[in-house]
Amino acid sequence: MSERFTNLAVRSQLSAIGQRSETVRRANLSAIVRELHLRGPLTRSSLVVRTGLTRSAIRGLVGELVEGGLASEAPGAPLGTPGRPSSRVRLDPDRAVAIGLEISVDTLAAAVVGLGGVVQARERVARPRAHLSVDEIVGDLAELVGRIWPIGLPTTAAVGIGVAVVGIVRRSDGLVTLAPNLGWRDVPLAERLRGVLDVRAPISVANDADLGALAELRRGAAAGYEDVLFVSGEVGVGGGLILGGRPLTGAAGFGGEVGHLPVNPLGVPCGCGSVGCWETEVGERALLLRAGHAPDEGRDGVEAVLREADAGSPRALAALENVGRWLGRGLAGLVNIFNPRLIVLGGLLGRIHPYVDHTLEDSLDHFALPAPRALVRIVPARLGVDAPLLGAAELALDPLLADPASWLRPRSAVAVPASA
Amino acid sequence: MSERFTNLAVRSQLSAIGQRSETVRRANLSAIVRELHLRGPLTRSSLVVRTGLTRSAIRGLVGELVEGGLASEAPGAPLGTPGRPSSRVRLDPDRAVAIGLEISVDTLAAAVVGLGGVVQARERVARPRAHLSVDEIVGDLAELVGRIWPIGLPTTAAVGIGVAVVGIVRRSDGLVTLAPNLGWRDVPLAERLRGVLDVRAPISVANDADLGALAELRRGAAAGYEDVLFVSGEVGVGGGLILGGRPLTGAAGFGGEVGHLPVNPLGVPCGCGSVGCWETEVGERALLLRAGHAPDEGRDGVEAVLREADAGSPRALAALENVGRWLGRGLAGLVNIFNPRLIVLGGLLGRIHPYVDHTLEDSLDHFALPAPRALVRIVPARLGVDAPLLGAAELALDPLLADPASWLRPRSAVAVPASA
Repeated sequence: MSERFTNLAVRSQLSAIGQRSETVRRANLSAIVRELHLRGPLTRSSLVVRTGLTRSAIRGLVGELVEGGLASEAPGAPLGTPGRPSSRVRLDPDRAVAIGLEISVDTLAAAVVGLGGVVQARERVARPRAHLSVDEIVGDLAELVGRIWPIGLPTTAAVGIGVAVVGIVRRSDGLVTLAPNLGWRDVPLAERLRGVLDVRAPISVANDADLGALAELRRGAAAGYEDVLFVSGEVGVGGGLILGGRPLTGAAGFGGEVGHLPVNPLGVPCGCGSVGCWETEVGERALLLRAGHAPDEGRDGVEAVLREADAGSPRALAALENVGRWLGRGLAGLVNIFNPRLIVLGGLLGRIHPYVDHTLEDSLDHFALPAPRALVRIVPARLGVDAPLLGAAELALDPLLADPASWLRPRSAVAVPASA
Repeated sequence: MSERFTNLAVRSQLSAIGQRSETVRRANLSAIVRELHLRGPLTRSSLVVRTGLTRSAIRGLVGELVEGGLASEAPGAPLGTPGRPSSRVRLDPDRAVAIGLEISVDTLAAAVVGLGGVVQARERVARPRAHLSVDEIVGDLAELVGRIWPIGLPTTAAVGIGVAVVGIVRRSDGLVTLAPNLGWRDVPLAERLRGVLDVRAPISVANDADLGALAELRRGAAAGYEDVLFVSGEVGVGGGLILGGRPLTGAAGFGGEVGHLPVNPLGVPCGCGSVGCWETEVGERALLLRAGHAPDEGRDGVEAVLREADAGSPRALAALENVGRWLGRGLAGLVNIFNPRLIVLGGLLGRIHPYVDHTLEDSLDHFALPAPRALVRIVPARLGVDAPLLGAAELALDPLLADPASWLRPRSAVAVPASA
């Protein structure tokens, strides 16, 4: 079930009991805020339809959100139909914001995203692919946040900080256990960031592909899908899996490392210590080497290969064909295991998708089981390179979405007659 | 969350509202019946502890189950402590039974399992490995059910029929879309069985490895675990995945086909049409061929290889070592993707586990990412060859476990004084 349907299910069970209680009120506020966050401003009538709550319940709950400062109501545009234009409820993007941060192999990025998904500021800076120290990276991120923080916005508006990192993360405490392409092992990233950031808010760290999947699910190519495989590639290849509407994390949050599927016993050593992992065949280095480039040319090198392919270079075309074939082989295995409806390709893999899509579909036809094969579509990520960054901000907003009641401003004191 | 904890969560949210309602009553009856089904007879005090319900709620609900014919109460054995021995609540294994059926590559099996997991009858018969027609197989199964059905038990006691089949199944209607080792494609198995079975009850069909996983989770090596990978091998290799306490099925129930991970691009053709799938390296045929046997010698051949290994045959030992190494490589990839706490090896793979465990652990050390590797244990299946059969019966009991209230005998009419 999707997040939305899960909410509805719990709520309908609760409301079947016909009991107005604190639990029900909080769950209903959460359902409304989630709808507004994911879909943007909505009329009260739409909220009635989408949440299954009664008109009068919506009126009362929206009133609470407005009074508590999380939302406002404004007249909507006339729809060309007779009668008053219906007013629309919108979340206040300045009242609660999240900071999204991203540490990728060759860039650092930061964004400030308001409730409702409004990106108020974002910046991405290149960083050398050398193994920078953790101190340098967290220092650069802190500086980046200071630079993009909107003038006039109090830092108390930040409800959370989410961090996407190209590595394997223990989510419970934000420990990066392994990030081969950063040269990191057991880095307590959440703790280190806490030491340098000026903003005080809870810090959540997660794998970049997992967060890319979250963003594509909420605001991108996978919106509305419940069984999605997000595969993102640069130097490494990561996966984010949504199964039945819920992210796959595994027992300790280490799940989803599809880049380390063993696909080639005669392959080359992988950064993880194994040999012939999928990412050694479909990652950036494999493409560059096969196309006759140096393996460390990075994104610029990849763009050069694509230009060569556009110009008809047989070597570039063969390199893409080869990567496409390996990509299809690995995806076939994942289709057999997960039976997803949609595969979203992010990063490098999304970039090369138009060049390899025929090879890819053909490989799936050959290597995947017919039944799950017939059900799956492959599309490039819609949010492009920023998917993990926006997913990090979404992650940071999750506690508020789950229980917005805790973020409402207290009601103004009402004088009660002493004689009542 | 495990099934049990999911129940508790819903229930506590509901009971927080302090409302006795039909919904709450049904959920609570379900929680009690599940506990008794999974753990066997329990005292009322244990039910209080395990369900979180109050003593008086347990008294009333157990009373309903006893009156409705699903349970009975009998004095327990004295515990050596002063005071009355506490009476124990047990489910009536004759009131509601499930029929489990299994179609494997070289056997057919049937079992009658009572509520509470009591196996009342079971039989397994060899069948030739030729491609029997669907008619022959469903006919044989119907005959098997007739043969083992307990004398005196009315067929109305059957609440459901579960079928484990070595193939890819669309669960919604029991269509076997592909079973290469049976030579089947798009066989409407549920419908065909309905035509020949004397017992009238809903028929559910699922993949044998999925059902093996279910049985091991409820009554075997994985009891109490929430993130489990069950890998079972004979000719083919299937997987059952439990993630966060819930089975992975994929968008249409085709998920879990771990045997068709592409692990060897230079490997041999697989029954599925692809090349170098994992099952071509770790299935029965691979072991037999490498050990110098004919690939179609089946279970007897495997036992012969193990006897040769016991006697120190270098060729048998090398064949096992080779299968163990491939097994470890594939499991490493699955550990990287799923981050499970436990891997349960069933069928052939459970049988050879004592011979390959060192190779296996060593391969995992080399090929899996250190963080998820450190968390996982590998054990053989505890229910042995019957795991899928027992899982089929569990599947058939699920609707009753979810809502036992529907199976209660109506209360005897109570005379109400007309003047009241």
